[in-house]
Amino acid sequence: CLNDGFADKRAMYGRYTQELGAYAKEEAARLREDGALRRTTSVRGQAPELMEYEKDPCAKCQVCTSWCRKFLISRVGEDWIFLILLGLLMALVSWAMDYTIAFCQQAQKWMYGGLHNNILLQYLAWVTYPVVLITFSAGFTQILAPQAVGSGIPEMKTILRGVVLKEYLTFKTFVAKVIGLTCALGSGMPLGKEGPFVHVASLCAALLSKFMALFGGIYLNELRNTEMLSAACAVGVGCCFAAPIGGVLFSIEVTSTFFAVRNYWRGFFAATFSAFIFRVLAVWNKDEETITALFKTRFRLDFPFDLQELPAFAVLGIASGFGGALFVYLNRIIVESMRKQKTINKFLLKKRLVYPAVVTLLVSTLTFPPGFGQFMAGQLTQHESLVALFDNQTWYKQGVAEEFVYSSEVPQAWKHPQVGVFITLLLFIVMKFWMSALATTMPVPCGAFMPVFLIGAAFGRLVGESMAAVFPDGIHADSTVYPIVPGAYAVVGAAALSGAVTHTVSTAVIVFELTGQISHILPVMIAVILANAVAQSLQPSLYDSIIRIQKLPYLPELGWGQEKYNIRVEDIMVRDVRYITLSSSYRDLQEALITGQLKTLALVESKGESYKISDHQFPQCCEKLQRNLEQSLCVRVKARKPYWMPVIFGPLDGTASHTGMLL
Amino acid sequence: CLNDGFADKRAMYGRYTQELGAYAKEEAARLREDGALRRTTSVRGQAPELMEYEKDPCAKCQVCTSWCRKFLISRVGEDWIFLILLGLLMALVSWAMDYTIAFCQQAQKWMYGGLHNNILLQYLAWVTYPVVLITFSAGFTQILAPQAVGSGIPEMKTILRGVVLKEYLTFKTFVAKVIGLTCALGSGMPLGKEGPFVHVASLCAALLSKFMALFGGIYLNELRNTEMLSAACAVGVGCCFAAPIGGVLFSIEVTSTFFAVRNYWRGFFAATFSAFIFRVLAVWNKDEETITALFKTRFRLDFPFDLQELPAFAVLGIASGFGGALFVYLNRIIVESMRKQKTINKFLLKKRLVYPAVVTLLVSTLTFPPGFGQFMAGQLTQHESLVALFDNQTWYKQGVAEEFVYSSEVPQAWKHPQVGVFITLLLFIVMKFWMSALATTMPVPCGAFMPVFLIGAAFGRLVGESMAAVFPDGIHADSTVYPIVPGAYAVVGAAALSGAVTHTVSTAVIVFELTGQISHILPVMIAVILANAVAQSLQPSLYDSIIRIQKLPYLPELGWGQEKYNIRVEDIMVRDVRYITLSSSYRDLQEALITGQLKTLALVESKGESYKISDHQFPQCCEKLQRNLEQSLCVRVKARKPYWMPVIFGPLDGTASHTGMLL
Repeated sequence: CLNDGFADKRAMYGRYTQELGAYAKEEAARLREDGALRRTTSVRGQAPELMEYEKDPCAKCQVCTSWCRKFLISRVGEDWIFLILLGLLMALVSWAMDYTIAFCQQAQKWMYGGLHNNILLQYLAWVTYPVVLITFSAGFTQILAPQAVGSGIPEMKTILRGVVLKEYLTFKTFVAKVIGLTCALGSGMPLGKEGPFVHVASLCAALLSKFMALFGGIYLNELRNTEMLSAACAVGVGCCFAAPIGGVLFSIEVTSTFFAVRNYWRGFFAATFSAFIFRVLAVWNKDEETITALFKTRFRLDFPFDLQELPAFAVLGIASGFGGALFVYLNRIIVESMRKQKTINKFLLKKRLVYPAVVTLLVSTLTFPPGFGQFMAGQLTQHESLVALFDNQTWYKQGVAEEFVYSSEVPQAWKHPQVGVFITLLLFIVMKFWMSALATTMPVPCGAFMPVFLIGAAFGRLVGESMAAVFPDGIHADSTVYPIVPGAYAVVGAAALSGAVTHTVSTAVIVFELTGQISHILPVMIAVILANAVAQSLQPSLYDSIIRIQKLPYLPELGWGQEKYNIRVEDIMVRDVRYITLSSSYRDLQEALITGQLKTLALVESKGESYKISDHQFPQCCEKLQRNLEQSLCVRVKARKPYWMPVIFGPLDGTASHTGMLL
Repeated sequence: CLNDGFADKRAMYGRYTQELGAYAKEEAARLREDGALRRTTSVRGQAPELMEYEKDPCAKCQVCTSWCRKFLISRVGEDWIFLILLGLLMALVSWAMDYTIAFCQQAQKWMYGGLHNNILLQYLAWVTYPVVLITFSAGFTQILAPQAVGSGIPEMKTILRGVVLKEYLTFKTFVAKVIGLTCALGSGMPLGKEGPFVHVASLCAALLSKFMALFGGIYLNELRNTEMLSAACAVGVGCCFAAPIGGVLFSIEVTSTFFAVRNYWRGFFAATFSAFIFRVLAVWNKDEETITALFKTRFRLDFPFDLQELPAFAVLGIASGFGGALFVYLNRIIVESMRKQKTINKFLLKKRLVYPAVVTLLVSTLTFPPGFGQFMAGQLTQHESLVALFDNQTWYKQGVAEEFVYSSEVPQAWKHPQVGVFITLLLFIVMKFWMSALATTMPVPCGAFMPVFLIGAAFGRLVGESMAAVFPDGIHADSTVYPIVPGAYAVVGAAALSGAVTHTVSTAVIVFELTGQISHILPVMIAVILANAVAQSLQPSLYDSIIRIQKLPYLPELGWGQEKYNIRVEDIMVRDVRYITLSSSYRDLQEALITGQLKTLALVESKGESYKISDHQFPQCCEKLQRNLEQSLCVRVKARKPYWMPVIFGPLDGTASHTGMLL
């Protein structure tokens, strides 16, 4: 690097101005001081009585306090304090919610267990409990804040693109989301908390920003708040799974198209802090001895998998890709078919609570343990199922792969005296598949990540058990016998299916953090990439699908492949834009409305200058147009009967604050 | 989600146009077909003899072949084929290079071992070997392509911002970099291959693009090539450490300011494929039984660390932050002091090979195992040292934490009969610290990541051993004794110090992938974040520091904190821009040159219209100005003696293709 001549040659291109940042800061500080000085001087000029205080013996004390206050306020403006508060808050919310949900689920089990001598009462208890909880959740959300319904990731995706969705980040929505979500998950239905948690974290960040704005002006900056929102999305995923790295990556993949790398540390910092507190709470509550992963696995480290198993993992990935696309399709079809059936739709719009109640009744009837539930491990909660599926043992031929002693209590639920473990797993997958797709269409706060993750794990376990059945002594040719670990297939399947549904690669990182083992990195990565390749070519991601269903204002990607490099602006742009001018007559307006394809009309100054009228000019322009139209209308009214026509017009920036009915 | 009324309210904001992508593609396809049709028609019109071929019996065959060729060419344009080729190529390069480097290092050991009865000959062999290799590397690079010197990450950072650095992505540079790097690392000096590998991968991508352009036009698209370059950076890191996820993240953090999420899958895909092939080659070569991590650790899973150890990890992180900043400072100071000393500088510029030879002589003399090297484990290569430092045993009090049987051959090098393991570690850290900072200033292709990683691991091991000495029975208060694992501290220290030097958080992910264990995620994350916070507030990252030293054209970040939200454009912009017009006289030019601060002068049309003259207009404008100046000069020459003045002028976009000496 003593290559001076070379360095000089490069110096020609321009000067490296590291000093720029320092200079700008100094200048900004100078300007601020100037401003402050001017203000102080003017205050002094107006209020000479202030001068007296300075002679006071208390003056020094007061100066000191005011300096302290200023210092504190300036510190409060620091990002890291905000991020710590956000992380702390979200960890507490997440932990409290998990605690309540676990309590609710225990209560159901307790009720169900206490009535073991009367099957009818048992059934009623098993079914009524979730129906009541889900109906309450739906009703509560509907009344308090309908915006809290659903996942929240599609909406956050839209908001981070700069669209203002009203009422999405208010305190009412926060309360509705948190309580609604707790009830919905407490019911034991196949719903997840991950999507809603992204929304909850964003709500937290928005409310915290508003609160902190009382201390310093920095929180009024819009750019800053957007940066904080994207950090909040990372916190949401991070403290939900205790997976800081996966959380940051997942939130980047799901919510951004262009990611500012300067936000990277924010996400990491807040998500790590949040995950730390979340897990520390578990230790303090004596649930855990120390901080470990949420679904800890115990696979062997020295020979995690054989190279010859990789094709099986690849097949698992491809199948998961098809499965993921099918899930998204099924979810959309259910919503759309409901909407098309006009009689059903009308009925459901009137009686909003009927739909969730019916769905819950159906799902909980089918999972009733003494009934059909016995064939699909119906009595297990999501958490218990997942722990069992990631288990280290081989279920097919018990006792073969028992390297570690493990409480064999949970896997009992998967064994049925009449049917084998393969049938149980298959039924579990098929039933949970449509149940999850159906349940996530209910108007309650809920996500689909966790149910899909669970189905993927079960599918992986099925493939793994089959592999173990086909190769009971493992594939490895050498003297050492390394039996196949079906639990590892479950981990790979979970990552692949959830990756396929959400179109993300970072589910791989999430499973490593969830299981606390990274030894299967290669199978997981291969399966996730293949699943993504298949799913992305068949269907949009679940979040994009919901954006489409809910008709949120969002520009889609142009897709990938060779074509996109040949698309020009002229291929996309609408040339024949209908507009009305300030001097438009009624006939012009009518023509524009009848022939135009767009739902909005542009209002321009006059025909020659096609500049759009800006937002603040709008009211008076509107008035002028109205007068104009009335004049032209007066002539027309004499000729024939006038009719009403609904018109939506406004500036085309998506705010659409001006709506009206034009005669 | 049957919330129709709500959805309608949102539909107002605009229509969700998923159809847009499909429409655009159709339109583009139609336009292309139109074009093709027109071309075909015109060809037919001009060449009626072509019609005869169609009657030929071979015609169908020919049509078929041409269709096949077209299909193949269109497939070759697909991104994934390019990425697979890139991954394959880089894996082969990485593996071959590792193989050669290991061979070189073995050769040195063999030579050194064979002469064990004559210490002088032994010393000569130990010292001559690296001096020859490094001198050859420096000379070879200097002659073939001086651009191959150094890390390559700073240059890639600049190139990805859109600056064209000439000769940086040519075949000559590729050859120089690969051979120079192999020799430099084979010498056993404290140098790394990670930074140069980013450059090598980018070179591969650029050359592959050029090669593939022979098949299809898609490879001429500049935007596409930039996207491929950013994927290549991920491949470089990924196949160097067999760490696909860490590679993608590290390359994002190091090279981008805004990251396009659509490139994310490219990086993942190529890096995973590359890491896979890289590790499969090791299995085929019988080095490994199956695919595992590069530096596999065997820490216990059930109780990885105690909550009360976290403060120790935090202290380790903060200390690493200071250490990282010191490393960057030391590295810069060495280069700058060399440049300032004019006599040394002049001498070194003439005899370019003296500097690397002297540095190598110094470093290898100090590591000579029978000499001072015995106190700092001098005979170990980087790889061996790292394996030893991540070892599961406690060195301080051997036999305590032996959960797994492990060949205790390597740790012997760290034990010296006279001095304890603490002294050895301390000496290792201090000596390697300045040696690495010095060695990375040599004009050979080399990176600093791996040496820093190693120093961090040693520092972590030192802290861990101290903790084990203070708490011999572990910290946990319960009945079970969980001894402290110093190897885990080494992992944390490695991640923290390398994170501090490079200002990245993703070193955390790299260590998980390198060690194959993620159980210490929380300590690692906490240490890395703290180290980053400390280092970022003290010094620029190593790469930014090199950018500054080499005066590459790069706009720095404005820094973080509250101030940046108050910076306006007016705080930064230069108001008093000196320019010359086409009708400038010699006096104007002289004044502009004397009073102006900038190194470039803007050339504008005339005084009123201050538009900059574009690149393609430049030659004739220059001519006009020259004529003008000559006229005004003619007058002046009569009056007094003219003098020479070097002037650099050109469009201010950093290409600076026009340089000249004006009279």
